Formats: sequence, C-alpha cells, structure tokens
Amino acid sequence: MKESKTPFSYELILKNISRFIDLNLEEQNLYISLLRQRVIRKKDFILKPGEVVKDEYFIVKGCLKVYSIDDKGVEHISMFAIKDWWTGDIASFLTQQPSNYFIQALEETEVIKISRKNYDLLFKKIPKFERFYRILYQKSLANYILRSDQNISLSAEDRYFNFVKKYPSLVNRVSQKDIASYIGVTPEFLSVLRKRISSI
Amino acid sequence: MKESKTPFSYELILKNISRFIDLNLEEQNLYISLLRQRVIRKKDFILKPGEVVKDEYFIVKGCLKVYSIDDKGVEHISMFAIKDWWTGDIASFLTQQPSNYFIQALEETEVIKISRKNYDLLFKKIPKFERFYRILYQKSLANYILRSDQNISLSAEDRYFNFVKKYPSLVNRVSQKDIASYIGVTPEFLSVLRKRISSI
Repeated sequence: MKESKTPFSYELILKNISRFIDLNLEEQNLYISLLRQRVIRKKDFILKPGEVVKDEYFIVKGCLKVYSIDDKGVEHISMFAIKDWWTGDIASFLTQQPSNYFIQALEETEVIKISRKNYDLLFKKIPKFERFYRILYQKSLANYILRSDQNISLSAEDRYFNFVKKYPSLVNRVSQKDIASYIGVTPEFLSVLRKRISSI
Repeated sequence: MKESKTPFSYELILKNISRFIDLNLEEQNLYISLLRQRVIRKKDFILKPGEVVKDEYFIVKGCLKVYSIDDKGVEHISMFAIKDWWTGDIASFLTQQPSNYFIQALEETEVIKISRKNYDLLFKKIPKFERFYRILYQKSLANYILRSDQNISLSAEDRYFNFVKKYPSLVNRVSQKDIASYIGVTPEFLSVLRKRISSI
C-alpha cells in the first residue's frame, strides 16, 4: 500500500465526467482538489469485510476484483473494475456501515479516489455533479439488475459469452478460477465449457 | 385497465419528493402537470416481458408484484411495491429495450406515473430533480446490492425474517407462494420454516 509519488494525469477522469456534464476550467480544478491518487500493488487489498468504506474509486490503470465469500466459503465476484470504471461498495460508503466485500488488485492498479466527506462537499461546491451521479447511478442500477437477471435466466455458456463481450481485455488477464466465479460455475465446468465452445 | 375518474391526492408523492429536495408551489404545480394517475384492478398487468417500459410508477395505495420467469418456468420476485414506493423496470425505461419483467397488481392499486418523455423534460424544467433522483437511485442501488448479497449469504430463515421486517404490512396480504418466491424457497419449505419459527 503506497501513495503515488509521481502523480498521474486527471485527463481520463475528466473525460469520464464530460460524458454527462460540462465543467469549466475553474470547476475542473476545484473537482481535482477534492480527489486523491493511489497506486495499489498487485494482490493488495483496499477493502476487507467488516471495514467501513471511506472512498469511491475511479480506475486509471489495472484491475480490481470486487467479491464476497458466503458462509459455505464460496467466492462470488460482483465486478472486475478496469480502466475508466468506477467502483467501491456504495452501500457501505453511503451508510458508513461495515462492508461485506473484499476489493483486491489483480494487477498493479492506479486509482483516483474521493472520500465520503469530499463527495458530500462536491454537491455543495459544484451542484451539477448531482446530474453526473444521477446518470451514473441510473446506469449502474440498470446494469446491476440486468446482470442479476442474466444470472437467473441465461445458461452458463451465454453468461461466459457475456463476460467476453463485456470484458474483452480481461479474457487473458484474469485467472480461469476468477472468470468461473464471476459467471457462477466451477473452474472444472468452465474448462469443459471453453473446450465445447472452441470445438464449435 | 382504467384511468382514474376521481383523481386522488398528490400529497403523498410531494411528501416523498420533499425527503430530498424542496419545491416551491410553482414547481409543485409544474411537477404535477407532468404526472398522470391510474387505478390498476386486482390481477391486471401493467407490464409483460417483451414490452418496452413507458412509465415509472409511484404507489399511492395497493401492491404491485414485480417478477420474472426463468427458462425452467420458475418465478423470481424482485420486489413488492407498496404505498410510498417507486417501481418500474429502470433498464427498459432508460434504454427503451424490451423488458424481461411482469408487473401485476396483487390488490386494486392506485399509482402516479411519469412517462419517459416527461421524465427527461423534468430535469430541464426543474433541475433540482437531478438531486432527488441522484439520492433515490443511490439508495436503490445500495438496497439492491444488499438484497443480492443477502440472497447469497443469509439462510432462508434469516431471509424470511428480513422480509417480515421490510414488509410488515404484507405478511398477511400476500400469498405464501409469493413470499416463498421472494425469499427464494419452495412454498413447502416456507411452510416448514414458519412452523419451526412459531414453535420457538
């Protein structure tokens, strides 16, 4: 766990924000003053169950795995957060109750983070961020519901195709075990599935 | 399916809005002008899979059941929407793609609805609604993630206790079959569970 010594650019996060709202230069600088940077080493955790979430993260480079472990010891991956994605545990971040999640870096990962205090301040200082987060949460909610639906209604094969479509850059960066956990099958079943698909 | 002839009060929806933003009288009237009322008869559907969602709903009275049916014919209840709740299918509402859901009235239900067109207009006319929906979606997202977690991590007994805590008014209004579907067990298992609990 180390703070970044050589700061990286805010260009990517500003571009992400500009999808939904326009910030002038003064607002951009004010926004940046509320952010912090961090480099997370491969395999390091930034969250473990029982901890209260202090920050929301934007990924500049690398990959974070967000997951929980059920009472039978089975791992459930909620999300791989990659470049240009937002992640965290919004329930714990908002309620300041302990999280049920692990967040671990699968590669060395550069993040930009905003604390809960600065997040609250942001809406006071730059009210148009209400719009940015309204649209961001709206899309997250729709995507989250869609994925839950698909976990129920799609076959394992179709869930694997969806993973490949959603995360084309991850297919060869993430372990087979993690892909299997994300789509909700055993690694053995995923191996059979991949052989079946490659023989089509 | 009938439009309401005797309009009901907008008091409840305005009170719901006032949790997060203050509207002056002019804004209240403008907002109300963008809404429509409807009474849904018991057992009527306002959404079936394949249809594109036209409206978001606020429940004034009654109860709607939001559910999907998987390819094995098993019903999965996402939500019981009761008085003072918002519901719909946000993914279909936003993307204007066909829904996977059924929404059915379990009782005669009074709703206030906003169309997609008026929803978009609302943010132009009264920008502070960005804040209202930012907070609403933020809470929905946190609740949705929490419920998905609990479906994985809690026992059926604890899921039943959560249902009773979340919907105290529904325990005797909704069928045992529907409660079983919501908590993800068979009606037979729920019956065993309730007997076990009542004997404690």
